[in-house]
Amino acid sequence: MSKFWNSKIRDASPYVAGEQPRPGQRVIKLNTNENPYRPSPDCSEAIRDFDIGQLRLYPNTDSISVCEAVAELEGLAPGNVFVGNGSDEVLALCFQTFFEKKGLTDLPVLTPEFSYSFYPVFEDFYDINPKMIPLREGLRLEPEDYIGVPNCGIVIANPNAPTSRAVTLDSIKKILDANPDSVVIIDEAYAYFMEPYETAASLVPDYPNLVVVRTLSKSYSLAGLRVGYAIASEELIEGLTRCRDSFNSYPVGRLEQAIAVAAIRDQDYHKWCRAEIIKTRAYTVEALEALGFDMPESSANFVFARPPKCISAEKLYQNLKAKGILVRYFKTEGLSDRLRITIGTREQMEQFIEEVKQEVDDAENI
Amino acid sequence: MSKFWNSKIRDASPYVAGEQPRPGQRVIKLNTNENPYRPSPDCSEAIRDFDIGQLRLYPNTDSISVCEAVAELEGLAPGNVFVGNGSDEVLALCFQTFFEKKGLTDLPVLTPEFSYSFYPVFEDFYDINPKMIPLREGLRLEPEDYIGVPNCGIVIANPNAPTSRAVTLDSIKKILDANPDSVVIIDEAYAYFMEPYETAASLVPDYPNLVVVRTLSKSYSLAGLRVGYAIASEELIEGLTRCRDSFNSYPVGRLEQAIAVAAIRDQDYHKWCRAEIIKTRAYTVEALEALGFDMPESSANFVFARPPKCISAEKLYQNLKAKGILVRYFKTEGLSDRLRITIGTREQMEQFIEEVKQEVDDAENI
Repeated sequence: MSKFWNSKIRDASPYVAGEQPRPGQRVIKLNTNENPYRPSPDCSEAIRDFDIGQLRLYPNTDSISVCEAVAELEGLAPGNVFVGNGSDEVLALCFQTFFEKKGLTDLPVLTPEFSYSFYPVFEDFYDINPKMIPLREGLRLEPEDYIGVPNCGIVIANPNAPTSRAVTLDSIKKILDANPDSVVIIDEAYAYFMEPYETAASLVPDYPNLVVVRTLSKSYSLAGLRVGYAIASEELIEGLTRCRDSFNSYPVGRLEQAIAVAAIRDQDYHKWCRAEIIKTRAYTVEALEALGFDMPESSANFVFARPPKCISAEKLYQNLKAKGILVRYFKTEGLSDRLRITIGTREQMEQFIEEVKQEVDDAENI
Repeated sequence: MSKFWNSKIRDASPYVAGEQPRPGQRVIKLNTNENPYRPSPDCSEAIRDFDIGQLRLYPNTDSISVCEAVAELEGLAPGNVFVGNGSDEVLALCFQTFFEKKGLTDLPVLTPEFSYSFYPVFEDFYDINPKMIPLREGLRLEPEDYIGVPNCGIVIANPNAPTSRAVTLDSIKKILDANPDSVVIIDEAYAYFMEPYETAASLVPDYPNLVVVRTLSKSYSLAGLRVGYAIASEELIEGLTRCRDSFNSYPVGRLEQAIAVAAIRDQDYHKWCRAEIIKTRAYTVEALEALGFDMPESSANFVFARPPKCISAEKLYQNLKAKGILVRYFKTEGLSDRLRITIGTREQMEQFIEEVKQEVDDAENI
């Protein structure tokens, strides 16, 4: 604690992300929902072809080439796309642009009780009234719970994290229809792992109050790049641009823009990657269920699994860690009986299952 | 204006950066203080050697490899360095970490009246009391003006922008000595263009309340990369880290870290680049003075020049623009009689001087 920190920083509780192993440490890393596959080979080509002389100039603030690539993919206009330094930045700018501060409204922003841990952080930072909506039995999100509740905004991760569950487009439409005066943010960080794939981006032409947020970190294997984007009506995109240009001036770098465009334009590779992960997820779910685990149906690149009675989630997390297998354990009440397990390669998951089987066997024999 | 924007965004006045020409447009670009030379060839090598497979993993949040490179250069420890997405982000985090909000203190943050236009933006954003300290005759910053003035923080750009003037290390020491309970930020975006080069980083071991902020955008020719850093005592660096990990999670990307390290480690090229720009600045100043311009002594990669009486700064700006030469003109009272002119290559400045000469000749003959 330093006398030079202001009161807000002295009181802050820093976010703790999943561990990153040190270089050289040999681990199976299933704790931060990274993609086990390399980015598209076209990204290597984009780097190779990049003229480093370009870096002496400031980037295009709007990342227009990325907007064009996304717009083409979604059948929308570049003016429907906003690009930022990862979806975390895009989400922060959404909170800053569309939701009103405590002093100026009594209305809260609605979020699911268990969801992405940064939503309450942004609410605290921008001084926004929070209202957590409990999940139903089995960590299920019930659209009815977001209808008739006065609010100044709604944020839903779909699929949700860490629960891994998705809601249908029909459910999202119901929420949008019931809240025409609020901006509704659908955080689709994991949407590309839904089977079949569905996206609220298809609703953008019909709902001026809808923002769909995406990241290249998961399905595009680009967590180390830091690029995310929002898809929305032009009036909402204009608000985000206005916000960025008023309070913030951190455009996405030139090289990042070039790599992002290459990744987005290589949909064949993207589809292959997703299909592999979805297959390996099916294998993992089946194997875990055979060992007595239960979990909600996953639409993400992770499962949120409850171990059999013989071993607690915390104990299993610690034992796996000691063996060099990292998964995510949340101490939070309501979540602490489960582990969030990222889907790696088939080979990694086979090793993982083998170790889990041994842990369960050992626990049963005590 | 959209009903979905909150009241803060509706009232905001977005920052207007210097124009960026469209691809293909042929201009001499002397309006955003970019470096006319390519980044170090070692940056190309860093890109070529970069394994794109790394990008599937999240970056090291602390950019430890960049901290190490800076620490080695400055003779400090990696714990004395904080890395962010450009010095704008680093500055924003400093305001957020070290300065107290209006409701919690009556004390203002002191900044020079004419300085980097983002300081008042950050003050507004974080709800901090601002106090502008007028410059003296000739746009000179007088250290005495920062002594005995109650404050909760001080921010000084050295050299200052857009004035281009620097103060000595002795002056900075006086300000630090007189304000031991305030954090003093010295924004050294342009410090590497001082002749001889001096840096407040050398004072960090003696002053726990000093933060020196730097960017790779100017002297390292990496405006398109977005990397900046702070150098300070470990307790101040810890505060910045705590702030970032509490409210924000935008680490610098993996590739950017690799390129930044390559640039920082190639000091031979860096010195060559600076020396060229300093030489061309001397040429430019002499040529402009011969045409009747006057300007403060520049310690930056730009000059802040007042045209002779026959032509106004605004008129000259417009006429040059029509000829494809971009310089920066500020409408602000107190600055509107001058132009901020970035130092380009010798060839660019010769062309620039030729066009300016013609404008002055034409104006004199009316």
